[in-house]
Amino acid sequence: MGIRIGISGYGNLGRGVECAIRQNEDMELSAVFTRRDPSGVRILTEGVPVYPASDILKYKDAVDVLIICGGSATDLPEMTPRYAKDFNVIDSFDTHARIPEHFDRVDAAAKEGGNIAIISVGWDPGMFSLNRAIASAILPEGSDYTFWGKGVSQGHSDAVRRIDGVLDARQYTIPVEEALKEVRSGSNPKLSTRQKHTRECFVVAKEGADKERIEKEIKTMPNYFADYDTTVHFITMEELERDHRGIPHGGFVIRSGVTGWEKENKHVIEYSLKLDSNPEFTSSVLVAYARAAYRMKREGMKGCKTVLDVAPSYLCREDGRSLRAHLL
Amino acid sequence: MGIRIGISGYGNLGRGVECAIRQNEDMELSAVFTRRDPSGVRILTEGVPVYPASDILKYKDAVDVLIICGGSATDLPEMTPRYAKDFNVIDSFDTHARIPEHFDRVDAAAKEGGNIAIISVGWDPGMFSLNRAIASAILPEGSDYTFWGKGVSQGHSDAVRRIDGVLDARQYTIPVEEALKEVRSGSNPKLSTRQKHTRECFVVAKEGADKERIEKEIKTMPNYFADYDTTVHFITMEELERDHRGIPHGGFVIRSGVTGWEKENKHVIEYSLKLDSNPEFTSSVLVAYARAAYRMKREGMKGCKTVLDVAPSYLCREDGRSLRAHLL
Repeated sequence: MGIRIGISGYGNLGRGVECAIRQNEDMELSAVFTRRDPSGVRILTEGVPVYPASDILKYKDAVDVLIICGGSATDLPEMTPRYAKDFNVIDSFDTHARIPEHFDRVDAAAKEGGNIAIISVGWDPGMFSLNRAIASAILPEGSDYTFWGKGVSQGHSDAVRRIDGVLDARQYTIPVEEALKEVRSGSNPKLSTRQKHTRECFVVAKEGADKERIEKEIKTMPNYFADYDTTVHFITMEELERDHRGIPHGGFVIRSGVTGWEKENKHVIEYSLKLDSNPEFTSSVLVAYARAAYRMKREGMKGCKTVLDVAPSYLCREDGRSLRAHLL
Repeated sequence: MGIRIGISGYGNLGRGVECAIRQNEDMELSAVFTRRDPSGVRILTEGVPVYPASDILKYKDAVDVLIICGGSATDLPEMTPRYAKDFNVIDSFDTHARIPEHFDRVDAAAKEGGNIAIISVGWDPGMFSLNRAIASAILPEGSDYTFWGKGVSQGHSDAVRRIDGVLDARQYTIPVEEALKEVRSGSNPKLSTRQKHTRECFVVAKEGADKERIEKEIKTMPNYFADYDTTVHFITMEELERDHRGIPHGGFVIRSGVTGWEKENKHVIEYSLKLDSNPEFTSSVLVAYARAAYRMKREGMKGCKTVLDVAPSYLCREDGRSLRAHLL
């Protein structure tokens, strides 16, 4: 029997977790829990039950690790501490500024229940954090750069959709190639927000809407667009559906630093992701950390962890001996 | 008082460790141990003693972590197990095929002494291994690619120097740009040795030596050059010293894989290094893992570890709370 995974919440992320479990022979999907009416939720895996979220405690013994697929604004701050009392849990909480507070609440709950919780798992926070931490420990004298894209930003797309006269929209965040090049040279540039990323919007306007006004409202929107060079394209609904259905994303974490007695040698460490599907990649990271949570619990650990607290070998299906022989 | 580091062996790597310690405020160099006559060894740090290796046990209480800077062929297989009985130790053992056997011997010694030993620390094995392991855990259906260079290969340079008529030589390993591009596209290519890397040699020949014969001997040398497209340039000793004094290196670890119910989405994870000084970068990694060894020992752990067994937070000077608030 494999590691039994429960999924709480069945949207893009939950479905991604379901797909990722199928790619890992040592895991199996045990159940999906939903706040919707379970009879209306069709999942992909045959023979796996969908239960109402309100019944979740009944299935405590059928789930080794619960992956909580919810939003960071309201779902996870409430759900992760609650479930951590009774389950080993993984979440992808990504409101950077509120991580310490979320950590403390989840930690208390997980310790009370004797469980492992791993929060803020994904790629940023997640893999990008890991790379920022390791690279800055290796090169303490240097600078960090994070670039996002090219990819769809859900928050920015939503902001455009809220503008009067907009039927639908998709926003891409794009790193500036010249800025990347300068950073990779090791010259340690100071870069403004505008110098690092551009934004590109594909907008479907309602018939008769004032496109000039919409474009101006987008480009001057504070926080979201005003600090960036933004391009706006008006397209048809057919074009949006044909060319912009995917949810690609990615980005770059670059550390440049110096070594040597006179700091005479430069080094550049770069980590990058190019993802066809942002939610499916995030789900794949969640599933690898579910394996880690299962093992850490079995070794008697408890409490809240982040990706920084998890030794990489816990993520791998192979045991230590095999990793040392074939991969190290 | 900082973490007290001892250095065993004072060549390029030992000197690199000395420089790296100066960049980490929580560390101090406690002593250098050498098999040479200590009176003939001048180190960079003022006021730090150089002792004969044979006296090392006398200084057991003055060293929190001993970084063993020796060769993998004969030094480390003997030194690391021996020192692990009395010290927390770090080494950069890099003979991939013999890691399991080295691990077992060091593990037995470290457990006997109640110490932590971290072996095979550096960038390959080391950072590259870490990235191979994590990326393949996240994308279990996919392929791994490791490219090295552009950089100086010491072993290949030595092989050229052993050819009759060669005064000195420098060999660069160069990844093939088209192969990198193909791998990054996610097309999962099968690549031969020749398709992945080329080799470039800069050779100083003795006066009157038969350059045609030297070039042929290089290009047909089994294991080292025969399987590669190799370019040979004859240069003067002045040119070699002017243009090829550095020890740059680097490389790329790329994982491409698929996700989705029908495996319809591609993802590419890439980690790369561009290093002005191979030994100084390796030293910087050794020093970060020395911090980890110190902390793991204080938490009561013991035995042999590799980079795969070390949670990233142990590498960082900041504590968990600060990492979560500022870096995650």
